[in-house]
Parts: sequence; structure tokens; C-alpha cells
Amino acid sequence: MHKVVLIGAGRIGHIHARNAALHPRIELAGVVDAVDASAQALAREWNTTVTTLDAALADSTVSGVIVASSTDTHLDYSLRAAAAGKTIFCEKPIDQDLGRARTARAGLSGANMLLAFNRRFDPNFQALKARLDSGAVGAIETLQITSNDPAPPPPSYIAVSGGLFKDMAIHDFDMARWLLGEEPVLVYATGSCLVDPAIGELGDVDTARTVLRTGSGRLCVIANSRRSGFGYDQRVEAFASAGMVRADNVSESTVQLWSESGVATDRFQNFFLDRYAEAYRREMDHFADMLDGAPAQVGYADGVAALALAEAAGESMRTGAPVQL
Amino acid sequence: MHKVVLIGAGRIGHIHARNAALHPRIELAGVVDAVDASAQALAREWNTTVTTLDAALADSTVSGVIVASSTDTHLDYSLRAAAAGKTIFCEKPIDQDLGRARTARAGLSGANMLLAFNRRFDPNFQALKARLDSGAVGAIETLQITSNDPAPPPPSYIAVSGGLFKDMAIHDFDMARWLLGEEPVLVYATGSCLVDPAIGELGDVDTARTVLRTGSGRLCVIANSRRSGFGYDQRVEAFASAGMVRADNVSESTVQLWSESGVATDRFQNFFLDRYAEAYRREMDHFADMLDGAPAQVGYADGVAALALAEAAGESMRTGAPVQL
Amino acid sequence: MHKVVLIGAGRIGHIHARNAALHPRIELAGVVDAVDASAQALAREWNTTVTTLDAALADSTVSGVIVASSTDTHLDYSLRAAAAGKTIFCEKPIDQDLGRARTARAGLSGANMLLAFNRRFDPNFQALKARLDSGAVGAIETLQITSNDPAPPPPSYIAVSGGLFKDMAIHDFDMARWLLGEEPVLVYATGSCLVDPAIGELGDVDTARTVLRTGSGRLCVIANSRRSGFGYDQRVEAFASAGMVRADNVSESTVQLWSESGVATDRFQNFFLDRYAEAYRREMDHFADMLDGAPAQVGYADGVAALALAEAAGESMRTGAPVQL
Amino acid sequence: MHKVVLIGAGRIGHIHARNAALHPRIELAGVVDAVDASAQALAREWNTTVTTLDAALADSTVSGVIVASSTDTHLDYSLRAAAAGKTIFCEKPIDQDLGRARTARAGLSGANMLLAFNRRFDPNFQALKARLDSGAVGAIETLQITSNDPAPPPPSYIAVSGGLFKDMAIHDFDMARWLLGEEPVLVYATGSCLVDPAIGELGDVDTARTVLRTGSGRLCVIANSRRSGFGYDQRVEAFASAGMVRADNVSESTVQLWSESGVATDRFQNFFLDRYAEAYRREMDHFADMLDGAPAQVGYADGVAALALAEAAGESMRTGAPVQL
Repeated sequence: MHKVVLIGAGRIGHIHARNAALHPRIELAGVVDAVDASAQALAREWNTTVTTLDAALADSTVSGVIVASSTDTHLDYSLRAAAAGKTIFCEKPIDQDLGRARTARAGLSGANMLLAFNRRFDPNFQALKARLDSGAVGAIETLQITSNDPAPPPPSYIAVSGGLFKDMAIHDFDMARWLLGEEPVLVYATGSCLVDPAIGELGDVDTARTVLRTGSGRLCVIANSRRSGFGYDQRVEAFASAGMVRADNVSESTVQLWSESGVATDRFQNFFLDRYAEAYRREMDHFADMLDGAPAQVGYADGVAALALAEAAGESMRTGAPVQL
Repeated sequence: MHKVVLIGAGRIGHIHARNAALHPRIELAGVVDAVDASAQALAREWNTTVTTLDAALADSTVSGVIVASSTDTHLDYSLRAAAAGKTIFCEKPIDQDLGRARTARAGLSGANMLLAFNRRFDPNFQALKARLDSGAVGAIETLQITSNDPAPPPPSYIAVSGGLFKDMAIHDFDMARWLLGEEPVLVYATGSCLVDPAIGELGDVDTARTVLRTGSGRLCVIANSRRSGFGYDQRVEAFASAGMVRADNVSESTVQLWSESGVATDRFQNFFLDRYAEAYRREMDHFADMLDGAPAQVGYADGVAALALAEAAGESMRTGAPVQL
Repeated sequence: MHKVVLIGAGRIGHIHARNAALHPRIELAGVVDAVDASAQALAREWNTTVTTLDAALADSTVSGVIVASSTDTHLDYSLRAAAAGKTIFCEKPIDQDLGRARTARAGLSGANMLLAFNRRFDPNFQALKARLDSGAVGAIETLQITSNDPAPPPPSYIAVSGGLFKDMAIHDFDMARWLLGEEPVLVYATGSCLVDPAIGELGDVDTARTVLRTGSGRLCVIANSRRSGFGYDQRVEAFASAGMVRADNVSESTVQLWSESGVATDRFQNFFLDRYAEAYRREMDHFADMLDGAPAQVGYADGVAALALAEAAGESMRTGAPVQL
Repeated sequence: MHKVVLIGAGRIGHIHARNAALHPRIELAGVVDAVDASAQALAREWNTTVTTLDAALADSTVSGVIVASSTDTHLDYSLRAAAAGKTIFCEKPIDQDLGRARTARAGLSGANMLLAFNRRFDPNFQALKARLDSGAVGAIETLQITSNDPAPPPPSYIAVSGGLFKDMAIHDFDMARWLLGEEPVLVYATGSCLVDPAIGELGDVDTARTVLRTGSGRLCVIANSRRSGFGYDQRVEAFASAGMVRADNVSESTVQLWSESGVATDRFQNFFLDRYAEAYRREMDHFADMLDGAPAQVGYADGVAALALAEAAGESMRTGAPVQL
């Protein structure tokens, strides 16, 4: 059993606490949170104790640290955990500031650090990746990533989110890098405010299209909207030389109603914690493998690369011109 | 070009007239109908002439006869066409009376006669049959035939229809024989009047389930209702040793509407002339092959066999006991 | 927290132990098994203790008992738990012998007892039931239950199984009763041995079709095979006056591969513990509601009624005649 | 009956000849082709005569002209037909040269001229448009057009095609204008040669992504490849404020094969004459309406507008910068 301490007792912290506590190779050895009541409640739920980051890092029996606190603390806590030799599970994004993220390179690139882009661990996207890797459809040529939220967040969230590209499309930039098999060298993005005028007033967009181009000419389109009107819309189509592989949305059930107006399926899953429940479990399982010695499948460098693409997309949208990377 | 004369200028006659007239190897050489105005109108539409059955049979340049007149004339006209050495395209059913149908054996079993069970020519069911015959799923074991009409016909139609088994399920009995690869030896049927009480008052049922069993123990269920509530419902599932092949309903278009309540497809095709338009064309194409010398793929004996199953199903329903064939 | 003791540390016992232990309103207070090592291992896994049935029943702080031991003990343990005033969660079937099951009526019909037909708790079937109950498609008229296992069990299992109807179709008889909204009054069944000759040598069948008829003439077909060739095949189609509701199989993922030969989906789930994982969780949730005072949604009488249908189906198959209930 | 003369007896001329000849309100009154044998053969097939453009235009009983000759003659023949007061059915594209197409404005903008973008008449895309226009999903915001050919044409075709944007994406530009409900004001395109190096050697691309932006900020992506690997890939997703409407590919049949590896559907239609057979019939039906006096639903101005977008896309790809319209 690997002892692991969790930093951050918020919504995502609750998910990781449960998955860590129930994992057969992990022991949730403590919870850290600035708000003591939150830490206490979560610790009680999983029969563990409240601790501090300093204590956790000083405890040589603790092997791993899960950083699930607010975004602005990700780099700092990860650097400290790395310095203490801990295996790290860090929530995305690595930071909102590309410069800051790059500065941390010396301290983080040597650590065994999972940058937790949850979609890489989703069973559907993993199955898609496995089909591509199997060679069944030949070499990938183009990629369509559709990534729409069910409904826009409140303006207060938008205000501190870092904008659509860093907050929402960051997942899609990581997916693109993971699936394209090559680094993008050109980014073009355009966006609009079509969903909620309050988002536009904050200087952000709620609807965007981004085109990525790799060195060998592979093309990727990322389609984003803050509102789908039909639930969580997370789909991928990967076109290759001998066919196409795609992953579709997940429905609440397999039930269909056949009537005069045709076939009506059940609704799509609407909430990311439902849609990605299994992804979070698989993330934790990979973290257990890392604690056993396996290298992280996605780490610090991936977090920086996705952030660089998000920054380039924002620049392209502002200037109206494609950005070379 | 093979000269062909059509008997019967009703609804199905119009379909066959068009398909014959447009066929590159067939010339529609005349139309026969008891109602002269109907014959005249249809002949004019396809630039041909009105004639009589006697004249057509006496004309040695006429190779084929299409019998699309009322059911009670099918046997008589076919026998006369057979005696005149014509190739025959006869609408289903062969007759409503099994004894009468069997009596015609001497005159018809030697003729090159197509008993036009249209579903055997439907592209979907032909594709299903081809998959089965390819051996891709091994030997067939069980069969599920779902065959529901969009809405019940008027009681006046029911009164002369011969009942659900002879009028509606007759298609399904033919499909069962075609797909099972063995003759049924046992029939059990049960039925209810759930859709329209007027049908029950006429001594008929509008809802039925029939179980067929072949000599080697293959099992088939036929599900019938006079009303689906969602259009024309014509589906087949053929279970075999290594999997299942199925044919589904046909939708009006590929359009889907994704909304908060899920995915809504377009409606299913509702009218049998839409659903089987291509089947009727393929029937005529097969008739052209017969005129070129090919043997009929489905003929007199198949018409009798399907009728015998319909009669057995009716008996089973009345007596409550399975019927041995 | 309701204290609950589990009897039976086998495969299904492991499922219930986990779901009980993780349930927020249930405390897994002990494990009972004739094989001490099994009980010890399972108790250790969930941080509880090994106990005996006597001790559990004598302990007034224990509110509920989960009977997950072998079938022949279900009635006896349930009767003892009922006598001790415990709330009961009993695995299906209630027994293999209808007479024995009926004899237990005095002792069980008053108990708050869940007869754990897991399919009633499956999210897909529950969604189907909810659509039917909503009245969206009118009153139910006919029902098609398709229930095929991925592959046949070994002959040793068949020998003690009670036969296809009591072992496998028992679930479908319960589903039929649940969905038809009326009791069947007539049962006709026919079966074959098409999958594994060893099953036939044991006097059992591996393929069957059963027709049920209710008092008002509603019809139900149950299709069973011990082998689908394509995974776990558990589907329902409920036809009603204004349409149809159906529940389909569950795929491993949403991934599709589009190639020259068409669209290939991912495989269907193959293992019942995957297919019904959520059903087992919902069962335990319902048991928690029962411990809070709610009545069981499916209980002793349902277990007897399903067994009676299974017995009638077996008799119909043996005699070749429909059986009146 | 409206007399109509067809110019061009090539592949697409054959389609229009058949649809005109079989149309109840149209009489195919003559065929014109530079190659006399071609004209003779087609005229014979549909029982009409060979004529010349001059004779047809001089014949006051001829109401309509179908221009299905080579692209470089479209403008000239249409101008002459317009001058003679004929109703015009002109194949797409209007021309490969935007300047030339614009020059013809004086002569064509007053004519009742159908610019035959066949996809506007496809039942699937028409059903999609009808859903959008019904308001069922609110106002359109973004559009995804996927348009991939089954396999690349030979280099000899590419050499005279005008390039991917004018030859292939021209349809998609028309679809975008039709569905977006607003004119694009910005075009960004990027392309690669990933399918056939011979296409690249001719200065063309075989893979492209184009982003369109309208005045109010609606966004459209057009995805094109000269090779899908899985048949004719023609799909549309229209995202609106309350949901999404989409049209999918068409399969050869509804047949599915369920096996250990999952569900395998039938292949997608591979040939545009199959995929759009009904669209061509509906085009002719609309032409009959025009001959009855109805205005063309898509005409000269649409042909020019689509060509302008194609030209802008080509410029954007060459310069690497978005092009303002």
C-alpha cells in the first residue's frame, strides 16, 4: 500500500479522495485544505486524518501527493512535492501563465508527475487511441475534436477562468497532441460570443473554432462552445488513410422510444463527473502504477505544451492571423 | 425485348406497369382490366394498348403475363397463362383456400412462375440473406420476424382479407421458410384483439404471436400487429452459431435532432409502396431474367407452403394446441 | 447506519459486500460462510468481522441480513431471518422447488424481504419501465424479451441448475410480470438443444421460446439461448398502443471504426458482473431504503410467481401443450 | 407538358435525360451533343430526337434548356438560352473563373435559372434544412460540413478540375451559404497533400480545412478530403441555441452483423450517382415547377457567391492569411 496525501478538499478533491481510498494499492494517508472544516469532513468520510503539506512532505512513509487545490497553487505545491521526492498527481491546468509554467521546468521535468488530463483516461477515448495505434485504419491524417459544455458557467467563473482556450480548450489541445502523433506548428483560431453576452463583456468568447497544423501537414479542428443545448458533447473523429475512428457521446441509458415521430433515445450525460467517473478511477489506477515505479503517461511537458497551444490560439484570435509555433 | 401483358390496373398493377415499362428488357405490350376506364388510363400512361386475356394468351409474341388482379383470380389466370406456355408473374397470395391452391398443382408446378413475395426482393432482406449464406455467422438456429403494419385497415378490408394469418403473416411465413433453411413441422399461434374491437367482431385478431419449429429444432417467432404506432415495422433477427444478422426498419432520412431530451431520428417509412419500391423493381428484374430463361426464385410450391402455414396457424389459434405439419 | 450481516462469501457475496460496505447508510457488520477462509478473506477486505447466522440473528443491533449463499439455503435462512424480525435481502431464485417455495408463505409473506431480481434495478430497464409508466406510448400490448447468455456454462453447472427455465428464464419471467402489468394465464414453451449436445444429454435444452398470455390478451415472447455469439444479449421491446419502448445491449465503449466494410462498433459487454454492476448498487440502495422503512419493490410473492411460470414453461415443453395457470 | 432540350449527353446528361423523360410534366424534346453518336444513343434511349442548340433556341415550343455540357460552356449556353427566353437548368459550377462568371451578370441575373447544386435537393439535407427552419432548435450558431470523396480522381482530372476548392468544396460553400442564413465575411483555409503525391505535384491539395465566419459571428468549418477510406462521406452538423441537427451518411442497407467483435453495419454508399439519385429527381421536379412559373430556389447569384468563396479559400491557403470578403 502506497501512502498518499491529498491537497484540496473541493469538488475534484472529493473524487480523488474516494478513488484513492478505494484503490487496493493506495492508502489515503491524509487530507490538506486551507479550510479546516472541509479537510475534517473529507478525512472523516474516508477514515483518515487532516494534515499539512509540510508534514506530508516531511513524512518519509508518504510516497505520493495529489495536488487538487486551486490552479494558482499547482506549480508551487508540485515543485515542493518534487523537491521532497514524492510522486505527484497534479490536476490540470499546470498554470494559467505560460511563462511561469516554463520557469518551473528545472524543478519538475525530472519528477514522476502525472498532469491529470482526465480525457486521456476515459474508456472511450482510450479505446479510440487503441484502435488508431493498432494500425487498423492506417496513419492518421486529420482530426475533428468536438467539445461543447452543456451550459455556460456563471460570469464570475469566466472572469477568473483564463478564457475559453486556457480553461476549456486546454483539454482539447492535449487530446490533439496525444492523437495527432506530431506537434502542431501552426494555430489559427476565431471565436464569437453567441451564447451569453456577459461572457463577451468580460472580453472572452463562448464559441470558437481552432485549426492546428502539424509539420507533415496533418490537420486538426477543435470546435468549442460553452453551450450545446443537449448535454455534455465530447466527441472525436480521427481520419486515417484507410478509414476513420470515432468516439461518441454517452447516453444516460440504452432506452429508445419509437413513436410516430421516429426514434427518441435517452438524453446524453450532462455532468462531467458522470461522464468521466471511470476516467478519474483510471487516473488513480495509473497513479498507483506510477507509485509502483511506472513513468507518468502524461506529465509536466504535456501541461506546458497544451498551455502553449492555448496561448497561441488566444493570440491568433486577437490578431486575426495564424500563429507559428 | 420481351413482350409482357399486365392483368389488373389497380394499385399494385400501377407499380408493375411502371417497372415493366421502364425495364430495358421488357416491353409492356398491353393492359387488361375488367374496368375499361382503368385499363385505358394505365395503358395511356405507359404508351401501350388495352387488350384482353384471351388475345394476350393467343398472341405468340407475348412471352409473359403479370397477374395483378384480385386474389380470387390468381389461380385461374395463372393456370390459363401456364396452359398457353407463358412465363408468369403472379401477385401473392396464390389463393385464400389451401385446397384450391393444391388442386392447381398439376397445371402450375411445371410452369416458370414467380409467386411475387416482394420481401424476398427487398434490398435489406436480400442483404441479410446474403450474410447468412456467406457463412459469416455459422448455421442459423433461431429467427425473430417482427412485422407490424402502421395502422389497421378498415373493417371492410378485414372482412374479405382471409384473416391476419393469410393476409398479413403470409409474408412472414414465406420469409421464415426462406431464411430457416428447413421446413417448419410444428406451428403454435395465439392472438388477441387489442387494436380495434371491430376486427374482433369480424372473428379476426389484430395481434398475434406464432412459433414455428423445424425438424432439427430450429425455432422461429413471428410477431404481428395491425398497428405499430410508429410506421411500417418490418424487421428480422437471425441468430446463428457465431452471431446474429438483422435487418432494421427504414427511416425517411438520416436526419437527427439532438436536444435536451436526447437524439430524435426522422420517422420510419410508413407506406409499403415506399418501403418496398426497390423490391418491386427487383421483382421485375428477376422476371426479366425468367423471360431470358432463368427459373423463378420463388414459385407455386412456395405459395402453397406459406398458405399451409397460415392455415395451420389459424387452426392452432382456434384450438389452442400446436399443429403438426 | 444500519448494521447488516452478509451470508455467503462467494462471487455474488463479494459484490454485495462491496456495495454494502461503501453504502453511506449501511454498515457491513459481519460475514458468514461455511468456509471459514472465505469468510475471513472477505471480512478482512471490508474491515469487518466473521460471525455466524445465529449470532447475527441474536444481535438486536443487526437490522438486516443479506442471503447470498447457495440456492438451497435461501428459504431456510430467509425464514430464520424473518422470524428474528430482520429486513431481508435474498438472492434469486427463491428456490428450485415450487412446492417448497409455497410452503414458506406463512413465514415470509409478512417479512420485509427483497427478492433480488437484479434486472429490475438495471438503469436501462428502469428507464424503460419509467417510459412505459409515464404513459408516453399508451397501454402495453405485447412484450419481446430477448435474453441470451454469451456462452453456455459447463455441463456440471447445468446438472444442478434446475434447467433453462428455472435457472436462466426465471429472470425473464419476473421481467414479464413486472412489465406486462397483468399476470400471465397461459404459458407455451418449446425448446431445443442446438448449442451443446452435452446439455441435451442432461435432459435440458439450450434454446427456447416461451409465449405468455395475460387475462386481457396481452402477449409476451421470451427468447432464450445459452449462447449468443456476441456477448451478453439482454434486450426488451415493449409495444404499446402509441409506440414502442426498448432497451438495448450495452457496448464496451462508444468507439466506432468506419472502413470500407461499413461501421464497426465496439463489442457488447460480455460478463454479467459488468453489465449489472450498477443494478447491484441500486439493489443495495433499495435495501437501504427498506432498512429505513420502505417496503420491498419485489419480494417473496414475486419469487414464487416467477418460479410458477418457470415450472409451467417446463411442463409445456415436456407435454407439447400450453399450460393454463 | 413542357418541352425541354438537353445539351450534353455525358454521364450527368444521362441522369437528367432519364429524369426529364420520366417526369409527368416534362417532355424531353431533343438532345444536343458535339459528339453525334452520343446524342443519337441517348435520344434513342428516351424516344426523342437529336437537335442543335440553335434549333432548340429558335423553337418557340421549347420552354426549357438543360445545360449539362462541359464546365467551360455553362456560361455561354446559359446566356444564349436566357437571351432566347428559355427557363434554364444549368449544372454546377457556373464557371471556374470568378471574373467571367461576374461578367455574365447582365445576361443571367434576370433569367429564371436553376444553378443545379444537387445537395440542396438531397432528401437528407432538405430534411435537415426543414428542421432548422422549423425553429425546433433555435437560431443556428455554428456549422460543421464534412465532405470527403471515397477515393481521389486520377491526376488527369485534377489537372483540369480548378483545384479542390472550386471542384469539390464548391458544393460545401453553397451548403454553408444555404444553411448559415448569413453571408460569410471571412475565409481561412489550409490544405495538405496527404493522399496522393501526384495531386501535390499538380499544385493542388487533397486535404483541407476551411473556416468561414459570418457578419454576426456564426462559424462554419468545412472538412474536405479526396479520400475517406469508407465511401462517400457527406455529413452536416448544424448547432443552434437549443440543440443540433445533423444529417448522416447513407448505408447500402439496414443490415447489421452482430458478432464477438461488436456490431458491423453494411457499407456506406460509395458512388455519388447512388447517393444523390433522389436529389437529381427532385432537381428535375423543381425545374418542372420553374417551367410552371416558380422562381428558381438556387440560381446565378448563388453560383457566383459559391465561386467567390472558393476563390477566397484558395487565396487564403496560398497566402496563409484569412481573406475578408
